[in-house]
Amino acid sequence: MYGKRPDMTVHQVEPYNAEPPRSALVGRAITPVDAFYSRNHGAVPVGELATWSLRVEGLVGNPGSWSLADLRERFAEHTETATLQCAGNRREGLVAVRDIPGEAPWGPTATATATWTGVRLADVLAAAGVSAGATHVEFLGADHCPEADPPQEFGGSVPLRKATMPEVLLAWAMNGEPLPPVHGAPLRVVVPGYIGARSVKWVDRVRVLDGPSANFFQASTYRLLPADVTPTGTPGEGVELGLVAVNSDVLQPDDGATVPAGPTTVRGYAFAGGDRTVARVDVSTDGGTTWTQAELEEQASTWSWRHWSATVEVPTGEVEVVARAWDSSAALQPERPEHVWNPKGYVNNSWARVHLTGA
Amino acid sequence: MYGKRPDMTVHQVEPYNAEPPRSALVGRAITPVDAFYSRNHGAVPVGELATWSLRVEGLVGNPGSWSLADLRERFAEHTETATLQCAGNRREGLVAVRDIPGEAPWGPTATATATWTGVRLADVLAAAGVSAGATHVEFLGADHCPEADPPQEFGGSVPLRKATMPEVLLAWAMNGEPLPPVHGAPLRVVVPGYIGARSVKWVDRVRVLDGPSANFFQASTYRLLPADVTPTGTPGEGVELGLVAVNSDVLQPDDGATVPAGPTTVRGYAFAGGDRTVARVDVSTDGGTTWTQAELEEQASTWSWRHWSATVEVPTGEVEVVARAWDSSAALQPERPEHVWNPKGYVNNSWARVHLTGA
Repeated sequence: MYGKRPDMTVHQVEPYNAEPPRSALVGRAITPVDAFYSRNHGAVPVGELATWSLRVEGLVGNPGSWSLADLRERFAEHTETATLQCAGNRREGLVAVRDIPGEAPWGPTATATATWTGVRLADVLAAAGVSAGATHVEFLGADHCPEADPPQEFGGSVPLRKATMPEVLLAWAMNGEPLPPVHGAPLRVVVPGYIGARSVKWVDRVRVLDGPSANFFQASTYRLLPADVTPTGTPGEGVELGLVAVNSDVLQPDDGATVPAGPTTVRGYAFAGGDRTVARVDVSTDGGTTWTQAELEEQASTWSWRHWSATVEVPTGEVEVVARAWDSSAALQPERPEHVWNPKGYVNNSWARVHLTGA
Repeated sequence: MYGKRPDMTVHQVEPYNAEPPRSALVGRAITPVDAFYSRNHGAVPVGELATWSLRVEGLVGNPGSWSLADLRERFAEHTETATLQCAGNRREGLVAVRDIPGEAPWGPTATATATWTGVRLADVLAAAGVSAGATHVEFLGADHCPEADPPQEFGGSVPLRKATMPEVLLAWAMNGEPLPPVHGAPLRVVVPGYIGARSVKWVDRVRVLDGPSANFFQASTYRLLPADVTPTGTPGEGVELGLVAVNSDVLQPDDGATVPAGPTTVRGYAFAGGDRTVARVDVSTDGGTTWTQAELEEQASTWSWRHWSATVEVPTGEVEVVARAWDSSAALQPERPEHVWNPKGYVNNSWARVHLTGA
């Protein structure tokens, strides 16, 4: 379905929401498109795209509409390697603490990395002429999201400071191939270092604003609420998500695997958004009393995840392998999912844990 | 001494290292200069400043020297409110876990906020013409640090991307008054969002480089080592510190205070560096089982701390008040100092804890 591997875990068929098995991500700096998770709130638009163009409007001196050919002709092409991570990544670890009704129990593979090719949003904004007083840039898609209240297109915004950074792209290609429909063709936003939700697919409007977007997916969801609050969907409640906190998980062996007792190489990924990179990963088999430092592969770019591996001794019987990452701000993942549990189940960045049996 | 309050905790007389009592910081968005912590690795330079000028050199097209009058005349003046936090802030909480010989047991008040006035480093670099291949900007002071190996001036660097951001200043004034000698007169760097060590005082050289600074305080110290490693001072070991992770502490009541049993207002600060701001603070009196959300005061700027307060019920007898902050990337402070303990005692951002007695 949608060109994905047959072994995807499909959380929802329509709109399509799916993530690959852990093994599909092991050791690959760039995720093949057929293994790249897909998170959608509306069906892939089709008819809406027949007359597609990108409208740039709001607090700009020169509003206008751009075809894909216009964008290619007018602006320099750039490619950036960037990891996208869904804010719901690793929600299953929170669901294990307390149920989260109505939200899919995403595992650790709603995180993936591609090369993205397109034009810099900064260049398009410069051509449009951003007016004084602008603070945010809003992206709106061509899709329809019935779950929104009221139903509306998917959208969101980022601060103008981020929007004008060279890494933020309007992209038409992924891993060197034309963007597939399920990933946002003909054009999507790629905001490296931010939750995947801000990289709006099928983008047909870029609006320069004097505040954050009022779109449902910015103002009412993708917000972190305290554990003791019941979400009401009231715009503005809780903390708006955007930048990605340091996170990691184990990709191999799989959780629940039986492995030969003795030295076992554990492999995984770590990711830190914003202006941070992955600085260190530790692995423990005694619940965090002692730690082995993992070997880190290079980050393909400032905006990408970092794969890691560590060889640990797996005893005969059951063992919990724990991993934790540090970012370049010396931030460490928090220990327990209980501490980060929140009513919508976002941003589980507690220590990674897989349970192995040594035989 | 050095114009500071008489009740400073002086960790070292020469070079001068001191922080104020918690009460001096309560509820003040801007820290008075006489209560602003001072961290020095060398004595305040005097004779060295007689012929002071700022030399801009390295990978630039137009190297040159600037007097203070030159800088004032050539570039626009800017003021920024920014918090500085020493990487050793709250080290006492790590020392309580395991001794850290040779490092001062700083409390939670090696964090303070001022308005800084000067010129943008970006403007000075633009005038100097940064060459292709440049990646970092190094700052070197006029002081002498005998503890360095070999003895040298205090220095450090930040990535070029940060150095050219509008918030990074070469500052000659603090809270609207001329910069005092102990805070870096005639000129200091202010790098908002980075550990205080990068805001080099008595700066007399700005060097554009193709890598990080080789200065002792960048290459050999201010680095995060794993808990089981003994520091050797070898350049490059461990993780280079720079960006500041989310942190917080209680300022009132003081740790160890006796207060009337009943409702008590707890006040403190929270701070997050880099591109993050403080998003939420929680307070608990039952060890973290239940939490009260604190009221947050406005951040004076993106680059400043955020004061908070919460009213909790103090029972008769002893109680531990715990506080924890979340930043705008949804990063939460880690729970236990054991988890962040490191051989040099940097970046204790574990949950804040003060012990009160209700009477």
